[in-house]
Amino acid sequence: MAYEESYIEGRNSVIEALRAGRPVDRLYILDGCQDGPISTIKREARKNDIIIKYVEKDRLDQMSTTGHHQGVIAQTAAYEYAEVEDILKNARDKGEDPFVFLLDNIVDPHNLGAIIRTANLCGAHGVIIPKNRAVGLTATVARTSAGALNYTPVAKVTNLSKTIEELKKEGLWFVCADMDGEVMYDHNLTGPIGLVIGAEGEGVSRLVREKCDYIASIPMKGDIDSLNASVAAGVLAYEIVRQRLKA
Amino acid sequence: MAYEESYIEGRNSVIEALRAGRPVDRLYILDGCQDGPISTIKREARKNDIIIKYVEKDRLDQMSTTGHHQGVIAQTAAYEYAEVEDILKNARDKGEDPFVFLLDNIVDPHNLGAIIRTANLCGAHGVIIPKNRAVGLTATVARTSAGALNYTPVAKVTNLSKTIEELKKEGLWFVCADMDGEVMYDHNLTGPIGLVIGAEGEGVSRLVREKCDYIASIPMKGDIDSLNASVAAGVLAYEIVRQRLKA
Repeated sequence: MAYEESYIEGRNSVIEALRAGRPVDRLYILDGCQDGPISTIKREARKNDIIIKYVEKDRLDQMSTTGHHQGVIAQTAAYEYAEVEDILKNARDKGEDPFVFLLDNIVDPHNLGAIIRTANLCGAHGVIIPKNRAVGLTATVARTSAGALNYTPVAKVTNLSKTIEELKKEGLWFVCADMDGEVMYDHNLTGPIGLVIGAEGEGVSRLVREKCDYIASIPMKGDIDSLNASVAAGVLAYEIVRQRLKA
Repeated sequence: MAYEESYIEGRNSVIEALRAGRPVDRLYILDGCQDGPISTIKREARKNDIIIKYVEKDRLDQMSTTGHHQGVIAQTAAYEYAEVEDILKNARDKGEDPFVFLLDNIVDPHNLGAIIRTANLCGAHGVIIPKNRAVGLTATVARTSAGALNYTPVAKVTNLSKTIEELKKEGLWFVCADMDGEVMYDHNLTGPIGLVIGAEGEGVSRLVREKCDYIASIPMKGDIDSLNASVAAGVLAYEIVRQRLKA
């Protein structure tokens, strides 16, 4: 596992990377480009559920380090993703009730890194992030995680709501942070649990929120709207830790 | 109060700014430069307890936007600093026990901004930062504070240990976060309190730590060393909130 994220440029290189199963976070393709090799790349990307962004030539030129992108650049993850099953196995191996973080579209790599760091230290068994929109395991995320990415598995899923459904069958309860919920101290947060953290600014999306068993609020006395996403995650995670220690 | 931090360049402009009492965070002076005007600037800076950094010409050239720094650039704060007394008055006005954050050399502006944001939302009456080494109220800090700088007073002091001594006379107790302290749930954190947060990596300095009444630890289950400084501040601050709500 390396700390370097990388960009793969050019048609052949990208096709090879996709066929070799390298973890690609995002594929940037020149908008309007639809010849044979590009169609092959799109097909391979779809097979692997990879997000495609159609961008202008300027953007590709700017991202390119070689100057020979040929209309396509693949952004690969700095770290290998785990599977959700690896996270559950992690809990089983330790003989503990599963404690999982689910991040609903965190877009700031510093926040994602800090949250993975918190997940590690509060004893969570893994972190689940959605494939679309959210930031992936870039070099910045790895750096701000302060090494936690070496220990805490991060899984990427296509549909967070569906993953919540599946994990409910495994016995997990889900709590999400939201201002209009009951104050976090009044919920029972012991037992197998999934902690859902919303995006910066927008909070938890409606579909994901509807799947949650509890809506918990952090008491707010101040003049502004909300805590930084990684601070909110830390405060809620440690309320779970406190209740687990007491239980 | 503006969101723009600014740099004042050139000898006359800097002398005028200093004499007008503008809040200067740092003064950058060309290393080895010691003619009349520069001596005047140094004298004015010393009067106002402003930190002077001696730097190479390259560094000044890089910082300069006008190209005419004449060997001196003053970095002014994006926000006005408050006095420690303003923070105590803030508590008195609200009829609450003082709750103050003291930051022992936080150097990352994103962390400082996030901590001021947390201070606002958890009901703290102000934030105290040291003059030396630590980051000041730059534009990045203002932005990451998400507006909290408009409400939460931030005071800058020459000597954090001395400020702690003075605040003890006002009845405050001090708690600092450190790994080898007793777990935070076992301390009584109600009443007038100062929460001391250490620098990223180094933690709380020895002199400041010795002034603290309690050393509180956040329970850690993970594989890595420490939480992000702003997350640790949030977790401890909310343990104080929890205890105050319960009391």
